[in-house]
Amino acid sequence: MAMSLRASLARVAAQPARVGRRSVVSVQATGVINPSVKKDLDKVVDTIKADEIEGKKGVFCRCWRSAKFPYCDGKHAAHNKETGDNVGPLIIEKP
Amino acid sequence: MAMSLRASLARVAAQPARVGRRSVVSVQATGVINPSVKKDLDKVVDTIKADEIEGKKGVFCRCWRSAKFPYCDGKHAAHNKETGDNVGPLIIEKP
Ligand code: FES
Ligand code: FES
Repeated sequence: MAMSLRASLARVAAQPARVGRRSVVSVQATGVINPSVKKDLDKVVDTIKADEIEGKKGVFCRCWRSAKFPYCDGKHAAHNKETGDNVGPLIIEKP
Repeated sequence: MAMSLRASLARVAAQPARVGRRSVVSVQATGVINPSVKKDLDKVVDTIKADEIEGKKGVFCRCWRSAKFPYCDGKHAAHNKETGDNVGPLIIEKP
């Protein structure tokens, strides 16, 4: 995984600097967590009533890669494998 | 966001420097979402019983930066400001 990084770049700042004959371009990527969920919103907040969760429990995404967001669809597994991360869902058990 | 660029890097490879007229390209990126929560675990999954949530609702962290993880402590705001991201918590309302 160290050889295969996937990263979201919030901001890419190329800062060329010349020192003598040296040309240094430094690109620094800052860590956007959410690459694609509701990017038209300033902040994605989801509110769920516990008693409206289907079944005995709700499994909620915290990796921001689920096609069923805010619910988990298992995509955290691919993210963890690709990056070495260790994220997983929040499970809410209904009363 | 006009100045921001989002991109996915399938692979980040160090570019060898040319010596002489030196050109150095440094790319730093990690796709890790969770920098510090329970990094001893392969996967962080939290299970909460809805009826054990204190108060009328639970506000749960999805930015992985809360000191009160799995609960939100508001740190998503600093993350969003620093990176241009738009993440926020999951709110579970008790029955
Ligand atoms: S798909 Fe995102 S935590 Fe499972
Ligand atoms: S502190 Fe992480 S979502 Fe609020």
